[in-house]
Amino acid sequence: MIVVMKPGYTPEQLEGVVAAVKAHGLTPHLTYGVETAIVAAVGEFHVPALDPFEILDGVETVKRISQPFKLGSRQAHPENSVFPIDGFNVGGDDIVIIAGPCSVESRSQILETAQAAREAGANALRGGVFKPRTSPYSFQGLGEEGLEYLAEARELTGMPIVVEIMSQVQLELMLKYVDVFQVGARNMQNFNLLRMLGETRKTVLLKRGLSATIEELLMSAEYILAGGNKQVILCERGIRTFETATRNTTDINAIPVLKQLTHLPVILDPSHATGHVDYVPPIARAGIAAGADGLIVEVHPDPTRAVSDGKQSLKPEAFAAMVKQVKAIAETMGRRIAPVHAPLEAGR
Amino acid sequence: MIVVMKPGYTPEQLEGVVAAVKAHGLTPHLTYGVETAIVAAVGEFHVPALDPFEILDGVETVKRISQPFKLGSRQAHPENSVFPIDGFNVGGDDIVIIAGPCSVESRSQILETAQAAREAGANALRGGVFKPRTSPYSFQGLGEEGLEYLAEARELTGMPIVVEIMSQVQLELMLKYVDVFQVGARNMQNFNLLRMLGETRKTVLLKRGLSATIEELLMSAEYILAGGNKQVILCERGIRTFETATRNTTDINAIPVLKQLTHLPVILDPSHATGHVDYVPPIARAGIAAGADGLIVEVHPDPTRAVSDGKQSLKPEAFAAMVKQVKAIAETMGRRIAPVHAPLEAGR
Amino acid sequence: MIVVMKPGYTPEQLEGVVAAVKAHGLTPHLTYGVETAIVAAVGEFHVPALDPFEILDGVETVKRISQPFKLGSRQAHPENSVFPIDGFNVGGDDIVIIAGPCSVESRSQILETAQAAREAGANALRGGVFKPRTSPYSFQGLGEEGLEYLAEARELTGMPIVVEIMSQVQLELMLKYVDVFQVGARNMQNFNLLRMLGETRKTVLLKRGLSATIEELLMSAEYILAGGNKQVILCERGIRTFETATRNTTDINAIPVLKQLTHLPVILDPSHATGHVDYVPPIARAGIAAGADGLIVEVHPDPTRAVSDGKQSLKPEAFAAMVKQVKAIAETMGRRIAPVHAPLEAGR
Amino acid sequence: MIVVMKPGYTPEQLEGVVAAVKAHGLTPHLTYGVETAIVAAVGEFHVPALDPFEILDGVETVKRISQPFKLGSRQAHPENSVFPIDGFNVGGDDIVIIAGPCSVESRSQILETAQAAREAGANALRGGVFKPRTSPYSFQGLGEEGLEYLAEARELTGMPIVVEIMSQVQLELMLKYVDVFQVGARNMQNFNLLRMLGETRKTVLLKRGLSATIEELLMSAEYILAGGNKQVILCERGIRTFETATRNTTDINAIPVLKQLTHLPVILDPSHATGHVDYVPPIARAGIAAGADGLIVEVHPDPTRAVSDGKQSLKPEAFAAMVKQVKAIAETMGRRIAPVHAPLEAGR
Repeated sequence: MIVVMKPGYTPEQLEGVVAAVKAHGLTPHLTYGVETAIVAAVGEFHVPALDPFEILDGVETVKRISQPFKLGSRQAHPENSVFPIDGFNVGGDDIVIIAGPCSVESRSQILETAQAAREAGANALRGGVFKPRTSPYSFQGLGEEGLEYLAEARELTGMPIVVEIMSQVQLELMLKYVDVFQVGARNMQNFNLLRMLGETRKTVLLKRGLSATIEELLMSAEYILAGGNKQVILCERGIRTFETATRNTTDINAIPVLKQLTHLPVILDPSHATGHVDYVPPIARAGIAAGADGLIVEVHPDPTRAVSDGKQSLKPEAFAAMVKQVKAIAETMGRRIAPVHAPLEAGR
Repeated sequence: MIVVMKPGYTPEQLEGVVAAVKAHGLTPHLTYGVETAIVAAVGEFHVPALDPFEILDGVETVKRISQPFKLGSRQAHPENSVFPIDGFNVGGDDIVIIAGPCSVESRSQILETAQAAREAGANALRGGVFKPRTSPYSFQGLGEEGLEYLAEARELTGMPIVVEIMSQVQLELMLKYVDVFQVGARNMQNFNLLRMLGETRKTVLLKRGLSATIEELLMSAEYILAGGNKQVILCERGIRTFETATRNTTDINAIPVLKQLTHLPVILDPSHATGHVDYVPPIARAGIAAGADGLIVEVHPDPTRAVSDGKQSLKPEAFAAMVKQVKAIAETMGRRIAPVHAPLEAGR
Repeated sequence: MIVVMKPGYTPEQLEGVVAAVKAHGLTPHLTYGVETAIVAAVGEFHVPALDPFEILDGVETVKRISQPFKLGSRQAHPENSVFPIDGFNVGGDDIVIIAGPCSVESRSQILETAQAAREAGANALRGGVFKPRTSPYSFQGLGEEGLEYLAEARELTGMPIVVEIMSQVQLELMLKYVDVFQVGARNMQNFNLLRMLGETRKTVLLKRGLSATIEELLMSAEYILAGGNKQVILCERGIRTFETATRNTTDINAIPVLKQLTHLPVILDPSHATGHVDYVPPIARAGIAAGADGLIVEVHPDPTRAVSDGKQSLKPEAFAAMVKQVKAIAETMGRRIAPVHAPLEAGR
Repeated sequence: MIVVMKPGYTPEQLEGVVAAVKAHGLTPHLTYGVETAIVAAVGEFHVPALDPFEILDGVETVKRISQPFKLGSRQAHPENSVFPIDGFNVGGDDIVIIAGPCSVESRSQILETAQAAREAGANALRGGVFKPRTSPYSFQGLGEEGLEYLAEARELTGMPIVVEIMSQVQLELMLKYVDVFQVGARNMQNFNLLRMLGETRKTVLLKRGLSATIEELLMSAEYILAGGNKQVILCERGIRTFETATRNTTDINAIPVLKQLTHLPVILDPSHATGHVDYVPPIARAGIAAGADGLIVEVHPDPTRAVSDGKQSLKPEAFAAMVKQVKAIAETMGRRIAPVHAPLEAGR
């Protein structure tokens, strides 16, 4: 932490800063400039916030010099984190493709989608059963019935299932069914939920909030990691900006930035990041080209009948074409699509 | 809902749209333009999303024409909602000032702050006991101990207490202590929590999310109202933009926009909206001048020792000066600061 | 400037940084932390950019510690700048109200508006003759004809005229007519234009760009000040954010932030900042309450016939009502609306 | 254009809207809903703005239904625009790579960079001679001297030169030297400059403004096209958002959106879009994977000594490695890097 004094600061004010630094258990180092003075205080990590220093008399500004996240940091853990999800690995050379509908709507819908996604090359199945809807008048999800259909789809296809958890009270039920917990953008800073997931030993797919900074995403991951759960996948899903031509703005920069800052796997959700089927394949390709470790994509057998997100859901054929393009790009970078352990035939 | 066809649409595509409109129980009205055709479909409110129409063949774009919120809408309820909170009214001519520390830190801190705030003209006391902290390594709140101190402060000063709820599992405990539930910016779209608060009959102070639109704020209020709880206060607390000179950007426009769209009371939080004590009084004045029904302000007896938000917490003297300025502006607009029913002397 | 070394930096890398600091004529001061080292280099103002340091081997990050603006800074010039515009002062206790149509459309329109604005309490007249229009197919302004009408309106009412300049090639013509040059949001970083205006001795009203930071606005003012022209008025006119309920988002925080950082006068444009007549009066009130030194407001005798900005233009009656409200708020703060020197009767 | 009436509108108000629609030469089509009425008015393109309708009594909202741009629209011109730049084509299957320093600093710097860029696979050379600098105290460019060095580099390497124009007064001089005029982000809405470039017959590379929408970028292109100059290249270079981990946020979505809306070539500037050399190669790859027709990349022989943008400038070796990666991705999509007509050997 660097405390910069205002031009014209008094010796008493400087002493006040030095005393405050010491009171927080840090060692002050002073540098005198032409008009100002700088107090460098090492060990800031244990200072909960900079506020107590920023409002001392005579202080111009205070700047952090160390990252506020620890367990997720690549400084602390230079190698990529690689961990298994029911038969394939995430975070290594292989690329993971999670596909499925926004909402589980019926048994036939999810079984049909699962098989088509599996045949097209998907590794895991997504499907929501508790839906965070902007309107209380919209469809809110099938609940446990949906979980049962997902479990059946898993048996049929060998693909692990990824399901969004919205509340602490859903945990017990979901633990019986789910392979990967998805935390949605709106819950990225639901710290109670994150802490509870940190107590489990299931993989957590943590989506970036609509207006969360990259640093805040890493701080939220820290809540899970601090509980001892090391299996966290980060997901860029578009941020909110002034541009209205697309549902969100894909922050493609976040892919290489995250890969540099953290050892955790990083995937992209081109469906929410664009909001329109026409843009999903090019942005999926861009994500892999930028270095993402995988994709999560909305696929629906009949998007015009989807209860939610139809506009951004690929039909199975379009999804299959997208996987081929992604595969070709991955190969130029020395990567491949992760295989699925259970042969589809076995499940049939 | 208006469906606009692409230039060069075919008669079959137009028939497809008409059929889809009918299939959703709506009546289509056709208008033919030079290159395009328009299908107006009345009754869109019952259409959960526009997606099913947007992806039909030949469709250029689909636009909503009616507001997606109902119970909170001023169209449905032209008069201001006015409701009592333990001795004073919110939403009428009187202006409400809620003050207190970010976190309850100790018994003496909250009692001292409550008395000073009360003397300076505050109507209600705020104080957090469960804290949503970006970092898992920061102070997380005193929990029930904090609620007890707040209850004691209420007895002492006659001011009702406003406390943030972060999770469904905290409801039962908090119901025993709290007068007004605050829903923080990060939980504005925690729909399970909102629905649960809609089942209670306690006032809810709903803060706008960091990147939530005004319409989304009203949709979140709808979750509470739909449960039968009509006592919802909306709160502008700054949005996230590119500007970094302040913690957030006060969306002062939201005050008159909300007052036009909804009958619910609207207040401003100048502390979070600016992030710095120097800017709290001018922005508090601006909020009242723009038509806000109240303020919620962070006050702390010794901000340099606050465990959180010290930088944006006013000392009691500065708060008292701010109240005077706000009062003068309110009077030019025919309003006054709401009185507190219980005389402070009685509580002592 | 503070250069922070990466954890695990080598002695050679640190020497490289020290050498680079010296090569730029600065004196390095070293501080050793637990894992890192810090090089403080005084005199950064003469370093054009931090880039040369940021990319040195072993460097984690580089942070500025002094403000990049000088002539506009309140540190350099603690007293408010107060300067006259044809009969009244800007930047002191008095509040200035500039009013008029977006575009000069005809002789009768501008004369009628000028008289009505003057009677309602305006001090200066605005009106565009060269219009920056998003579409090449829209009305582009009356040019010199418009300037002549404005000059006539000035004679009639005694009000100085404020006109937008869009290009260097317009300067010579405009110098003959204009009292205050307005630089629009889209030209805030048209550095050639700013430099040329710095050579004149006419007041410049510099509007903040749609996505310009407060610091960038001050840097643009620096271009004018550096030419020796000290008469610069800064104008907040709304920034672009994700919110679409209003045309722009009024950054009301910018008012107190600018008043703290600079000695230059700061005014607000509530018309562009909101985009809708219904919101102009409350936001005008908010601006004055927040400490602005004035307002610039669009007024039109018949907004439904305005060629541009009709939606955000007040009718004269609504403008007069707004001035009354603003006046009452100003008085609670010890300020008044600046008088106009020439009596309206004399001009008639 | 669709005019939606407020619930509770009166017959007189509806007549007023119908009359206004007719007064603008449009034909009104009425649809009556349950609570509202809709007036569809065909031919809106000739209506300069919606404001006159939005402020009529009884009107709830007005929505455009046709795009405001014409000449650049793919509806009007379904095939890609392909045009030659001194030996290679832009906008077809070939991918164009423009490389060079931010600023021309010296003869040796630009000749060295040009040769290295050419050898690595670049097709065209960029270099600024008039620099838009945020600070008046920063280096402002070499002017004509720089143009002469660029011309020499063109002779040496056979690569056409791309140079930024900042002001109308620079046009005459630059016409003698420049092959492609670059319009920078800050000048995207300098409409006088755009109109003047529309009068020339040189290719214009138009960069998107920091906070310009995709539609505004297309409207600015319209200014150039309307002058008869059909050779316009659009460039995504990052937008300004709340994220501060990178200099800008690459709006990668803009690539497929623009390719869908317009027939003009679309390229990406990964240097400004990220602001850091580490992120330039992954984002360059992403751009090509998303369907961009080319790249413009900052390359400098010694970035630590660059007078501007050193942090985001690739060394020639890193640039050559990036070109190889981009080439491999382009090939998976059936594209190749455009060849340069003049052999490098000839120029030496």
